[in-house]
Amino acid sequence: MANIAKKVSWSGRGEDRGERTPLLNGTEDGKCNRQLSGGGMFHIGRLSTVDLEEEITPEEDIVRSRPKEIPHNEKLLSLKFESLDYDNSENQLFLEEERRMSHMSFRCLEINRWVICGLIGFFTGLIACMIDIAVERLAGCKYSVVKQNIEKFTELGGLSISLILWAVLNSAFVMVGAITVAFIEPIAAGSGIPQIKCYLNGVKIPRVVRLKTLVVKVFGVICSVAGGLAVGKEGPMIHSGAVVAAGVSQGRSTSLKKDFKMFEYFRRDTEKRDFVSAGAAAGVSAAFGAPVGGVLFSLEEGASFWNQMLTWRIFFASMVSSFTLNFFLSIYHGKTGQLSNPGLINFGSFDSDSLQYDLYEIPLFIIMGALGGILGALFNLLNNWLTIFRIRYIHRPCLQVMEAMLVAAVTATVSFAMIYFSNDCKPLGQDHTEEYPLQLFCADGEYNSMATAFFNTPERSVRSLFHNPPGTYNPVTLGVFALAYFLLAVWTYGLTVSAGVFIPSLLIGAAWGRLFGILMSVIDSKPSISGNPGKYALIGAAAQLGGIVRMTLSLTVILVEATGNVTYGFPIMLVLMTAKIVGDYFVEGLYDIHIKLQSVPFLHWEAPATSHWLTAREVMSSPVTCFTRVEKVGTIVDVLSNTSTNHNGFPVVTHTTEHDEPGKICGLILRSQLIVLLKHKVFVERASSRLIQRKLQLKDFRDAYPRFPPIQSIHVSQDERECMMDLTEFMNPTPYTVPQETSLPRVFKLFRALGLRHLVVVDNENRVVGLVTRKDLARYHMGKDGLEELHLAQT
Amino acid sequence: MANIAKKVSWSGRGEDRGERTPLLNGTEDGKCNRQLSGGGMFHIGRLSTVDLEEEITPEEDIVRSRPKEIPHNEKLLSLKFESLDYDNSENQLFLEEERRMSHMSFRCLEINRWVICGLIGFFTGLIACMIDIAVERLAGCKYSVVKQNIEKFTELGGLSISLILWAVLNSAFVMVGAITVAFIEPIAAGSGIPQIKCYLNGVKIPRVVRLKTLVVKVFGVICSVAGGLAVGKEGPMIHSGAVVAAGVSQGRSTSLKKDFKMFEYFRRDTEKRDFVSAGAAAGVSAAFGAPVGGVLFSLEEGASFWNQMLTWRIFFASMVSSFTLNFFLSIYHGKTGQLSNPGLINFGSFDSDSLQYDLYEIPLFIIMGALGGILGALFNLLNNWLTIFRIRYIHRPCLQVMEAMLVAAVTATVSFAMIYFSNDCKPLGQDHTEEYPLQLFCADGEYNSMATAFFNTPERSVRSLFHNPPGTYNPVTLGVFALAYFLLAVWTYGLTVSAGVFIPSLLIGAAWGRLFGILMSVIDSKPSISGNPGKYALIGAAAQLGGIVRMTLSLTVILVEATGNVTYGFPIMLVLMTAKIVGDYFVEGLYDIHIKLQSVPFLHWEAPATSHWLTAREVMSSPVTCFTRVEKVGTIVDVLSNTSTNHNGFPVVTHTTEHDEPGKICGLILRSQLIVLLKHKVFVERASSRLIQRKLQLKDFRDAYPRFPPIQSIHVSQDERECMMDLTEFMNPTPYTVPQETSLPRVFKLFRALGLRHLVVVDNENRVVGLVTRKDLARYHMGKDGLEELHLAQT
Repeated sequence: MANIAKKVSWSGRGEDRGERTPLLNGTEDGKCNRQLSGGGMFHIGRLSTVDLEEEITPEEDIVRSRPKEIPHNEKLLSLKFESLDYDNSENQLFLEEERRMSHMSFRCLEINRWVICGLIGFFTGLIACMIDIAVERLAGCKYSVVKQNIEKFTELGGLSISLILWAVLNSAFVMVGAITVAFIEPIAAGSGIPQIKCYLNGVKIPRVVRLKTLVVKVFGVICSVAGGLAVGKEGPMIHSGAVVAAGVSQGRSTSLKKDFKMFEYFRRDTEKRDFVSAGAAAGVSAAFGAPVGGVLFSLEEGASFWNQMLTWRIFFASMVSSFTLNFFLSIYHGKTGQLSNPGLINFGSFDSDSLQYDLYEIPLFIIMGALGGILGALFNLLNNWLTIFRIRYIHRPCLQVMEAMLVAAVTATVSFAMIYFSNDCKPLGQDHTEEYPLQLFCADGEYNSMATAFFNTPERSVRSLFHNPPGTYNPVTLGVFALAYFLLAVWTYGLTVSAGVFIPSLLIGAAWGRLFGILMSVIDSKPSISGNPGKYALIGAAAQLGGIVRMTLSLTVILVEATGNVTYGFPIMLVLMTAKIVGDYFVEGLYDIHIKLQSVPFLHWEAPATSHWLTAREVMSSPVTCFTRVEKVGTIVDVLSNTSTNHNGFPVVTHTTEHDEPGKICGLILRSQLIVLLKHKVFVERASSRLIQRKLQLKDFRDAYPRFPPIQSIHVSQDERECMMDLTEFMNPTPYTVPQETSLPRVFKLFRALGLRHLVVVDNENRVVGLVTRKDLARYHMGKDGLEELHLAQT
Repeated sequence: MANIAKKVSWSGRGEDRGERTPLLNGTEDGKCNRQLSGGGMFHIGRLSTVDLEEEITPEEDIVRSRPKEIPHNEKLLSLKFESLDYDNSENQLFLEEERRMSHMSFRCLEINRWVICGLIGFFTGLIACMIDIAVERLAGCKYSVVKQNIEKFTELGGLSISLILWAVLNSAFVMVGAITVAFIEPIAAGSGIPQIKCYLNGVKIPRVVRLKTLVVKVFGVICSVAGGLAVGKEGPMIHSGAVVAAGVSQGRSTSLKKDFKMFEYFRRDTEKRDFVSAGAAAGVSAAFGAPVGGVLFSLEEGASFWNQMLTWRIFFASMVSSFTLNFFLSIYHGKTGQLSNPGLINFGSFDSDSLQYDLYEIPLFIIMGALGGILGALFNLLNNWLTIFRIRYIHRPCLQVMEAMLVAAVTATVSFAMIYFSNDCKPLGQDHTEEYPLQLFCADGEYNSMATAFFNTPERSVRSLFHNPPGTYNPVTLGVFALAYFLLAVWTYGLTVSAGVFIPSLLIGAAWGRLFGILMSVIDSKPSISGNPGKYALIGAAAQLGGIVRMTLSLTVILVEATGNVTYGFPIMLVLMTAKIVGDYFVEGLYDIHIKLQSVPFLHWEAPATSHWLTAREVMSSPVTCFTRVEKVGTIVDVLSNTSTNHNGFPVVTHTTEHDEPGKICGLILRSQLIVLLKHKVFVERASSRLIQRKLQLKDFRDAYPRFPPIQSIHVSQDERECMMDLTEFMNPTPYTVPQETSLPRVFKLFRALGLRHLVVVDNENRVVGLVTRKDLARYHMGKDGLEELHLAQT
């Protein structure tokens, strides 16, 4: 039954299947009775139909997951997601520990950080290497079998049997992958880049950096690539790197119940985030052989505060990852120590002399960029509709597996049909060895060139489009291939398989780019154009990828590093820029669309430009539940157990006045800290004046991190409820505060720059009047006609 | 007389020679009666001998600049430098303007930003191109004349005449350059990188981004490179780019008294800083053909808050700059449109196949990195002593010019001697055309190989060390050359000429690196070692440069981009990392040394690790001079005129209580704002209740930016002194505040992440108790034995 209760999407499930506690499903961040403010000037979306107070019982959960339409509203912001806290809680325990530490201990910590980054890079590289070899082997077997079969039946005349064999083989691979993902760990579906973007942005996506996710992801990606889907293995590497980082840096595995008692200092969100950034960078580095691109990816997607040493460590992790992959692949290929194979995808070496570009080609590149932007927007739009359809109707794991198998079979059929009906025969070349040349109905000594494009891993196809000499491909072949692959890729992205969109995008773009180059050479026969259709394939690939994912600086550098040649930096930048501008005119980037479809409270770089008239007073949530310095245990338990509010941060005040007004702020305490305090019974008996408070250590908090138990699992007796709890030692005595008149952009800047989770709004007398959290800020965004406000709901 | 009054160093002079007002020389940032705190646990340096209360009169100024020893203490922090304010003052005027602006206007602003970045890139590229062509032409003339002369006198036997000719020519060039720099704009001396680092860090270095500085810098660098000094033209490009950016982005030139009435929105520190970052990046990009390296340089040295759009714009500026240089150079070289010449320095194309490295070479690279670190530290140490000597004794412009000329003559002499005494003859090659082959005493058809190294611009020498085939250089030649050039470069850096240290460092490193390669090939004759001394030259160059400047990520990328080949990324990173670790063990990086010698209050990335026991209470300056919302004009004028304090920021409080305690904070106003208010006589007459306050616009503040007049230039009559001034509209109503108990690292993080200038410390009741400024934070730094506190003084 638990399996049926699962939702489709990567965010659909609570923290733990068994423990659907309100802590994990409820609203976040210390607020009740949200006052909707400033409605007059907003374009209010339709009101949420989901009741905030509703408690989800297992029965209802099952009812919900029945194959009926799941309501979906784009103007919603989910309250289900919690935030990460990148601000250290500088309470007395923490300060005491820091003050005890000597200069040497800090140096040791620093060395530890370097060691961890090295390990992250090493393991990420190793995983990349494993995936590469496994895919190569499996796909190799498959293509050999199918090739033999086709060759056999070409003569005999029963090619439909070959088609069925191919389709069945593909579906089988994909089925295994899809079952693993859908039934064991749905969050491993897709490329994982949107999830990592959210994590680095500060949103806690449940189970995204767990060991199980990693295993499923790696296994899934091998299956889906070997299954011949229009997918790449590069995107998932980024997710894998992030999981490796989260695991290694904590020095333990909660899933395996193994604690190595190492790196305990790093068991908090702030430190973990840094390592996850490094892991993502290492993943990019391994995937594309682009260490600098990896660093820039991490920074572009994640960091808001730049720190020189951190960046340098991230770069180290990237370099080690790229080096490890390189080294092990060189052993695998029998050329130990020849480190010339820098990434999973290798664009082949572009010779700078033969592929020089001329000034008059720059307008052509810009046109291609615009084309890429339009095609990318079309891709995103189609995929957006498809994803909404999937969220509504295809949310049972069985259906998901069946869809994946269907796509695999269709992919095989389309490929087969295209190979079959094309009669684009080329002589077998000497230099450019096709791994699986298909003769089909071509004359002896010739091979079917359409087959090269389909009968190959996508990486190889990209490479041949970049490098094969002029005349290798027939324009019609290229056009039909680009169209077919475009549609297949649109259909494939968002399936419940673990797979990336980079390589299909590159492949589509390379195909139409090469076509563009061939057409240009017909119009203008200058040697620099007609001699290099591969150059246009590269530009087209960049344009298409840029149009879909809308990454900028990091993508430029990734592509430049993957080509191994800096000459193309300028045109690639121009193309990506054009693609982004044109694409943004129509629709957002693919990752942003998927983040939005999940109603994630994602914070952008800056507050919306026209939001200066909003102040903290309008933005904040109020009233706020506060505690006093010494609070009754019963009160705390009651507040924490209140499923309708589910506060996560509580300002601590000096005293509450008679009129129930909050007192002056003197600290901030988190739900997780209170839970640990309750668990360890850190109580003071009211009757006796003697302090029997147990001395807690920072270690107790670190051991509980990050899976703090729910309040329901902690038993507090009636006697204990009457005790008091002294919060002074555990609260953060100096939370960041802002006055009520602060403008939204100013609040936003403070919140974003410091990676806060709670920002207390105070009045002139330092009394707590409200609390600003991530969702309060993420609600406001730029719509077509100005500022829009999203609704909060518990979807 | 004014000329004599000048000080030696780049920070030695006030804002304007004529207007040595206390505003510009005084202490900063609203504090008086600084309480030295927490002395017990610090290693207190010797007490400053400079009296804080002292007023500097012109007479004293002249006395000071007499050629006596200027006291220098490394444990001082100068109060002379003001801070830039990267926090917008969100007062009513600003908010009203922002609220008036439509969505479209914000889009226009965004487009303007892009246009400005494009212009910055274009002009920076143009300047780089100009410098390159001028240097090439001038040096070409010089070498032709000297070569003819030497050839003539080799036969006749009067080579001393050639030597004198050479030395005189060099000295003449250098003299012109040094005179320009020393007498017109001393801040144009050196590479300008330390100054730009400080600017981006938030320290206002007087006159660093003025048009005059740019002109002097460009002219100076042409002279010093043409004069044959051991300098490069790359460092100054970074400074030039920054000046271009500061000029273009403001849409006016104060020096030329020309206001284009454009880009007025960008006339504040926050926006200007962003453009200066772009300018610095464009400079790096033009200098090394490294657009990505440029972006990373800007980020590594400057930014603390990373913003995706900003980074993308910086990248655009870099790309445009590199492209412009490339394009104009291709026209100059008669190959219009062939864009293969990406930077001022061109390392030549490294062929990835022939220069492959093997695994067993990595330990060798690491050894070279360590060697580079040691040699770099030695370089910095020697230069440090020399600079202290210069600060003490060589601070008259005439002396400085003479020293520069002496160095030029000695450089020529040493070069000549080395060419003369070496008899390392090589046959004239066919491929590697030496531009000025000197036959000297070699046989016909041969040339002197030592002459290639010296008788060339340093860029060409680097290139030939990288690419000339094995056997081109005699090991002894290389060793002697490296040693001689090392000493010359140490002596040269810090002269009053405009010149950079990148190229000499690369040249020294390339020389000993190649030597290392040759020695290795003697020990181990594997073909990959013996075949490629150029590879070791590259690694040596990286090691030496890394050991001197200690840049990390950006330098790796710059070198990779300059070689045009990503294969060397990993070894270069390893080498730079080793060089940095080894070098940091001995002494800081060269730029940091020079920043420290000027006692600049430079903020590092993080607070010292062991500073958790310090709180805002200990760090802050108190008591603070506050104003009330409606303040008497006389009081304001008196406070601003108080030369002993020279506050720059004043908290505005609701009311001061009877006991002279400060009231509750309700805003913050800056000296510059008050000056503008006083200048425009924004007064309310006390007698009449009618408001006659003139309506001020933001434009009035922008027009005055950045050269606000000193208080002395504003005449306030006795009647006016009795008027009141309402500050409500102009003050920032929501300054950032922290409670007194906040730990230093927390204060530091807030201050650094938001680029603040003033941070108000408040007590529990929101009453102002202190003010934290840049100097309060920069005072604390990690010494050898733990936390040290620097002294503040008005050096």
